[in-house]
Amino acid sequence: MAKELKNLTKRSENYSQWYNELVVKADLAEQSDVRGCMVIKPYGYAIWEKMQHILDGMFKETGVQNAYFPLLIPKSFLSKEAEHVEGFAKECAVVTHYRLKTNETHDGVVVDPAAKLEEELIIRPTSETIIWNTYKNWIHSYRDLPVLCNQWCNVMRWEMRTRLFLRTAEFLWQEGHTAHATREEAEERAKMMLKVYADFAEKYMAVPVIQGVKSETERFAGALDTYTIEAMMQDGKALQSGTSHFLGQNFGKAFDVQFVNEQNELDYAWATSWGVSTRLMGALIMTHSDDNGLVLPPALAPIQVVLIPIYKTSEQLAEVKAKLDEIAGQLKALGISVKVDANEQKRPGFKFADYELKGVPVRLVMGARDLENGTIELMRRDTLEKETVPVEGIAAEVKRVLDDMQTAIFEKARKYRDEHIYECDDYEEFKRRIKDGGFFLCHWDGTAETEARIKEETQATIRCVPYAFEQTPGVDMVSGKPAVARVLIARAY
Amino acid sequence: MAKELKNLTKRSENYSQWYNELVVKADLAEQSDVRGCMVIKPYGYAIWEKMQHILDGMFKETGVQNAYFPLLIPKSFLSKEAEHVEGFAKECAVVTHYRLKTNETHDGVVVDPAAKLEEELIIRPTSETIIWNTYKNWIHSYRDLPVLCNQWCNVMRWEMRTRLFLRTAEFLWQEGHTAHATREEAEERAKMMLKVYADFAEKYMAVPVIQGVKSETERFAGALDTYTIEAMMQDGKALQSGTSHFLGQNFGKAFDVQFVNEQNELDYAWATSWGVSTRLMGALIMTHSDDNGLVLPPALAPIQVVLIPIYKTSEQLAEVKAKLDEIAGQLKALGISVKVDANEQKRPGFKFADYELKGVPVRLVMGARDLENGTIELMRRDTLEKETVPVEGIAAEVKRVLDDMQTAIFEKARKYRDEHIYECDDYEEFKRRIKDGGFFLCHWDGTAETEARIKEETQATIRCVPYAFEQTPGVDMVSGKPAVARVLIARAY
Repeated sequence: MAKELKNLTKRSENYSQWYNELVVKADLAEQSDVRGCMVIKPYGYAIWEKMQHILDGMFKETGVQNAYFPLLIPKSFLSKEAEHVEGFAKECAVVTHYRLKTNETHDGVVVDPAAKLEEELIIRPTSETIIWNTYKNWIHSYRDLPVLCNQWCNVMRWEMRTRLFLRTAEFLWQEGHTAHATREEAEERAKMMLKVYADFAEKYMAVPVIQGVKSETERFAGALDTYTIEAMMQDGKALQSGTSHFLGQNFGKAFDVQFVNEQNELDYAWATSWGVSTRLMGALIMTHSDDNGLVLPPALAPIQVVLIPIYKTSEQLAEVKAKLDEIAGQLKALGISVKVDANEQKRPGFKFADYELKGVPVRLVMGARDLENGTIELMRRDTLEKETVPVEGIAAEVKRVLDDMQTAIFEKARKYRDEHIYECDDYEEFKRRIKDGGFFLCHWDGTAETEARIKEETQATIRCVPYAFEQTPGVDMVSGKPAVARVLIARAY
Repeated sequence: MAKELKNLTKRSENYSQWYNELVVKADLAEQSDVRGCMVIKPYGYAIWEKMQHILDGMFKETGVQNAYFPLLIPKSFLSKEAEHVEGFAKECAVVTHYRLKTNETHDGVVVDPAAKLEEELIIRPTSETIIWNTYKNWIHSYRDLPVLCNQWCNVMRWEMRTRLFLRTAEFLWQEGHTAHATREEAEERAKMMLKVYADFAEKYMAVPVIQGVKSETERFAGALDTYTIEAMMQDGKALQSGTSHFLGQNFGKAFDVQFVNEQNELDYAWATSWGVSTRLMGALIMTHSDDNGLVLPPALAPIQVVLIPIYKTSEQLAEVKAKLDEIAGQLKALGISVKVDANEQKRPGFKFADYELKGVPVRLVMGARDLENGTIELMRRDTLEKETVPVEGIAAEVKRVLDDMQTAIFEKARKYRDEHIYECDDYEEFKRRIKDGGFFLCHWDGTAETEARIKEETQATIRCVPYAFEQTPGVDMVSGKPAVARVLIARAY
């Protein structure tokens, strides 16, 4: 086994360290020399591109169009929506000057004090303010509605403690911002986009998610309702993977976006916003991967099949490689992405370990004897099971294995998740068990006080009121007060 | 004709104003409330997305992979490459603080003076410095080379005078950054990427370009050679549409990117960088469009065919629309993007003008009599020619017209360009004629002094030494000194 693989910390030893090492060793991303900002490396970016491509198509099917709005936001915009500024304006990158000049010793540059901006500009932490300031000019009549825009862009939040993909100062995301003539239509859109996220997570990422609505405390700054998808990582912690916000008329009013409705009356436009980010990469990595490295769902793997020749002589290499190229051609014809790795400077054992680390779903290995026998060795990454199969019909067999793996890793993750969801009615029991992770369904009295106490005492938070859960009234496990429903509580990333 | 169309300034009256109005009226982009930053509207962004998609595929075919590097660059990085800082560091957005706080009157936010950065950060004007600082850790041996990365991102240069797409403070672009083991390989890559740009401009944008190499004065800051493609706009001015730089070992040395070569010696990596931006949108608009609005090449048009019913009664509308939907289906089956516009709130005349303004390549119009006769009216946007053709075989006919239009607008632009390229050997004549635009091929003595004098006296600049031009030695038209070659001189955007 190759050196770098041996060095990967086991999940059971230190899950957090396993994740940090895996991201770097699998060539997904690394820290840059700019505090809290990451470099997304080509292999990691190739996965993100696949995610983008699929999500973008799903958005467009619902009528959404892409656009682009400015990176910088005037400071005063942030103060226009009172709740929004409380939630967002504080930790952000502030542009104060627009020019540098050569220093006195002529060996460097300094900020030119003469080039101070009249009003500071903020690097967008999210774009509701600048976008609604723009919508003011686009929306005058109900005939101009709905406006359904999305942008793929970078955003910045000055996080103090950062982790690759999970929490970085700069990250990539998409943010959808829609404007509607009625409350009902806006609420429907917010829920629709959450469903798009849930479908994407489950069908393509093979990550099972729980859909629900956030408590008031956990809502997006400026939202009337925040819908969320919550995934469970292998340490039992929750990872919020996407959110969709019903913003009511808050931004319509803050930016004076009024329109004439069908009844010929002036009204404020209704808003939603919704986003997923490179954080999804963290969810993908942590849900499926193991102590040998990444496990990628075939639907998002940049290389779905790697083909490796085993040989003693260069004649053997040429013969085996010719056969592998032929098989690669058959796979490509089925739309499968392949790589034939005949690099002679690396031993097969090194390659095996490296592609396991990188999570390539299927490995095909052929030696001289296989060539004679018309066989090939097929290894699938999720189970690490190897079997020798006929070359005849191999493309169809690989396709079948890829499809099966996509389903299998989803089912595995769902089984794990379901085994770690508990109904709990006793706060002492909760406090003992929350340390081991898992999702707890507990009755909650609906007060921010109880919520704060749970967070204070256990570091766990209310993730959501889940949609798909038959609710019965009960008693809040902390306060003993009546509770209409159970909420999902967990420690979270 | 619809109101907004009548309002479009004619090119002959004021070309510059025509452009400014067209960008806004055709819903491509608009100024934001942030100085110099634009909003790219959905219709404009859809064109940019098509460009991105095609270019991205062309890059990948040459082995390039996408990645992502930080938005912010430490100020000190800019000083590491001496020429680079001279060219770039001065007019840029400077981040000095990372936090806001509520003001004393609790009705706004102010910059928190306690949150001052130790070292200021610059919003990337281009990413050579941060990327080569990263490559230092990626490149140790010739086996790690070449590194072929590209990123699609936003960049910022604090321009004082801005125009939509042509010159904005923030713009979108791609920047490729490659590292190589040898000088030859790097030079070859720089030229290869210029050829990719030229092919893209001519085949997809239908914009003829002249390929060449920049004079020393006009080179990218830090480059040994800058290759360029130059297009001619309808006012005879040049628009630099893409550049590719051979950077030598300048950045390798500045960021200490050393590797062990095949001879087991330490050497510095060789670099290229290359980029095109949303400026291409400006080139596309200005090359083909006319006094009725946009003319888009079919290869980049978001909607290639619009189908419009003419009707008196709602029965007629239903019948005609059913037929148009059927035709739309046939067109889609050929991979053609279509829109059936049966909106009853807008008159046909308004629709005609609007789709002309937006540059939809083909318009199909059907009325009740057409339906009876089995005919349909086809209008092509470039020539505005209308003809009534049989519905039978219409999909193939539309496909033929689209293909023909793609070629025709390229040939039209090339003919215009070629008719406005002049050899000129007399400076007085040059000074008279340059005012009317056009490209001038003139002998140049190779000195920065002559170049500066031409710019000073005529506002024209040396665009490039063109590749494909048979050179004969001569006499510099300004200085009278010997000159080895003619260069291309023009006023430029």
